Amino acid sequence: MITKNLVDNVLKTKLDDIPGEVKLHGQKSLLNWLGVAIGAANHPSVDIVLSLKEELDWSEDITVLGRKEKSDMLTAALINGMSSHIFDFDDTHLDTIHHPSGPVAPVVFALGEKYDVAPDKLLLGFILGCEAELRISNAVYPSHYDLGWHITSTAGVFGATIAAAVILDMNEEELLNGLGLAGTQASGLREMFGTMTKPFHPGKAAQNGLLSALLARKGFTSSKQVLEAKRGFANVLAPEHDLEKVNVDWGSQWELLKNSFKPYACGIVLHPSIDSCIELNKKASPDEVVKVEITVNPYVLELTGKKEPKTGLEGKFSIYHSAAVGYLYGEAGEKQYSDDIVNSKDVTEFRKKIHPVVNNNFKEDEAHTKLTLKDGTVYEYTVKHATGSIDNPMKDEDIKLKFTSLAEPVIGSEKTKSLIDAIYNWSDLKTFDQILVHTT
Amino acid sequence: MITKNLVDNVLKTKLDDIPGEVKLHGQKSLLNWLGVAIGAANHPSVDIVLSLKEELDWSEDITVLGRKEKSDMLTAALINGMSSHIFDFDDTHLDTIHHPSGPVAPVVFALGEKYDVAPDKLLLGFILGCEAELRISNAVYPSHYDLGWHITSTAGVFGATIAAAVILDMNEEELLNGLGLAGTQASGLREMFGTMTKPFHPGKAAQNGLLSALLARKGFTSSKQVLEAKRGFANVLAPEHDLEKVNVDWGSQWELLKNSFKPYACGIVLHPSIDSCIELNKKASPDEVVKVEITVNPYVLELTGKKEPKTGLEGKFSIYHSAAVGYLYGEAGEKQYSDDIVNSKDVTEFRKKIHPVVNNNFKEDEAHTKLTLKDGTVYEYTVKHATGSIDNPMKDEDIKLKFTSLAEPVIGSEKTKSLIDAIYNWSDLKTFDQILVHTT
Repeated sequence: MITKNLVDNVLKTKLDDIPGEVKLHGQKSLLNWLGVAIGAANHPSVDIVLSLKEELDWSEDITVLGRKEKSDMLTAALINGMSSHIFDFDDTHLDTIHHPSGPVAPVVFALGEKYDVAPDKLLLGFILGCEAELRISNAVYPSHYDLGWHITSTAGVFGATIAAAVILDMNEEELLNGLGLAGTQASGLREMFGTMTKPFHPGKAAQNGLLSALLARKGFTSSKQVLEAKRGFANVLAPEHDLEKVNVDWGSQWELLKNSFKPYACGIVLHPSIDSCIELNKKASPDEVVKVEITVNPYVLELTGKKEPKTGLEGKFSIYHSAAVGYLYGEAGEKQYSDDIVNSKDVTEFRKKIHPVVNNNFKEDEAHTKLTLKDGTVYEYTVKHATGSIDNPMKDEDIKLKFTSLAEPVIGSEKTKSLIDAIYNWSDLKTFDQILVHTT
Repeated sequence: MITKNLVDNVLKTKLDDIPGEVKLHGQKSLLNWLGVAIGAANHPSVDIVLSLKEELDWSEDITVLGRKEKSDMLTAALINGMSSHIFDFDDTHLDTIHHPSGPVAPVVFALGEKYDVAPDKLLLGFILGCEAELRISNAVYPSHYDLGWHITSTAGVFGATIAAAVILDMNEEELLNGLGLAGTQASGLREMFGTMTKPFHPGKAAQNGLLSALLARKGFTSSKQVLEAKRGFANVLAPEHDLEKVNVDWGSQWELLKNSFKPYACGIVLHPSIDSCIELNKKASPDEVVKVEITVNPYVLELTGKKEPKTGLEGKFSIYHSAAVGYLYGEAGEKQYSDDIVNSKDVTEFRKKIHPVVNNNFKEDEAHTKLTLKDGTVYEYTVKHATGSIDNPMKDEDIKLKFTSLAEPVIGSEKTKSLIDAIYNWSDLKTFDQILVHTT
């Protein structure tokens, strides 16, 4: 009954039932998502997908964010979901290392444009899609992630289908079938981290989830108990799971409120290390440094243990690189993850001074850094909650600055400002087109 | 090195290296596949996918088998792969319960039409795609299947990418990246069996595999060790595996030769039971029968244990129904799996007399049936190797008859004959269009 209860919970929830705080957090999530998607719109991987127009000759119907090109709904969902994860700068539900907007928002944007859906309904679809996927993640984390699944796409595909179902006014049976179709397409291996295929995952989840909803709406049949069935999602993809978490306290507790935004352009598990290096760089010039010992949760090193990254993308999976640029530049934006900086002499030299140490008692948003100088001086700094974590969230002004730094180079200053205004004042929107016109 | 060795093996193999027997078996596989795809072309699930033309407005480029409609390559791959599995009447590699043509042939047909590829190259791509996916299945079976994965799609997606790579002359690096993309999309849960979503699986594998090849050919990057990596395909999706099986005896042993064709329109594990009931129905009229006790491999009951099927599709997952129609009709074609016959009084009554018994010592293509009559008479019949199994394969004439019974109602007698001739005489083909013109 888990799947059916989830569907019932989703379909009974109206926008008025959602607390203002949750709605606002949904709006911030959409703005943050839009920024990272527009910011990466000209990445070579986006060019490659768009070049398939030659082979596939899709219709030019839906906006590809930050680009002149348009495509059909499914292709736009793939590209917009992918571009939003390219910089690894998107939102994160830290409890499950799940990036909730990536698989869901592209569906909201595609359907919103296709059918000129009322903005309120789009926000409802987005919030419920995110809420549901995060609860599914809670139910299968950590065993599912440990096994090797990229939880953003595997759980995200359900969120994509749910968002579409809400927006398309699908009924219970249709949504049940849609979730069956979604769950049977759940995929995405962590082995792909560090390649273009990682950001491909949330895009594909958005695309697969949207396709599932479109098919189910027309009567395509599937399992109606995909989450809990003997050979369904949880039993097959998660050695241990607790499906009670999917529906517990629905409507009174909101997982979406735990969604956090990143100040640095890499996995959030690296943020406490970067925070501490930015803080400690005030103490001594790089030349004086002998050793930077950083104690972190074991996951951090598992995910980002690349000692000698050769590309910007690999740099995002390197605590050595990320800590080094934090120390050397006092920041860790997209620029610090360019191929040039990853291969620069200063950075490659300083990376050798970084020594991570794992400690099971540390949380993922925690770090303790010990800086040793040539003259033997030692400085220590503890980050209890990294910037961008739930307990130390980015402020509205920081979110807007981040959006601006990402979007402005692609769409210009005026559209950037308009989008910030429009999304922060969502309830004033008359039509979704008021957003769309500024996104390219 | 498993993935790299597979790629090297694939890319070094030319059509001349392939024994004539294997080539002919490839041709038979293509004919059998084409028959089941054309035969199911007007199924409601195909109508539903085609109706998405309204939402997606795809280009009308590639043939949808047995239909007037055309679509882009990816949509055609989805539909043609799906339709070929709708009747559960397609080919089977019995060692792994994998249906090899479903995910591979749609890619061959889509690319063959799009680029007017030479028939010889298409046959090479088809054979190598099937050979590779079956070897991957060997490496992960049975733990992968037992866990709940529909191996036809999870392993099949690799075959789809390999076929495309051969046909598109992709190089080693491109194919390695393509297999990374394919493997990260590997999906399909056995929970979906008995719904429209089961045949959706090979279609989606064909579509995903083709997309992977198209992207990798343009430089999209991925993991180059997807099969063997710590968080790659085998470790994440198969609790136990032996990846040595992927490349062992490449070029001297051919898994494709173990591909078998079904005389009955249901899972091959039901065939020995049906064989025995067809044989035993010569002994007594249905009224005289008290009990039909059928001893089978445990898998058979696990897969087909549905006691009271309500639809034709559910009937295919019911040993009760399949044995009953075998006894009552002396056959088990598509007609015997119609909703009408599944719900007819004669059949529902006779189903109650069917009593399956499992025995671990029985192979999947084996059955022993004990018929007990009202007067106490007992007849027994043993099927060592079911019709359609490797040791008791369908003869050419049976394959042609099966193709005719499936294709003729959809495309007519003349085209049906032309296709049989063309595919059995593949090496005489000048262009792939000589096949295509007969497929709708």
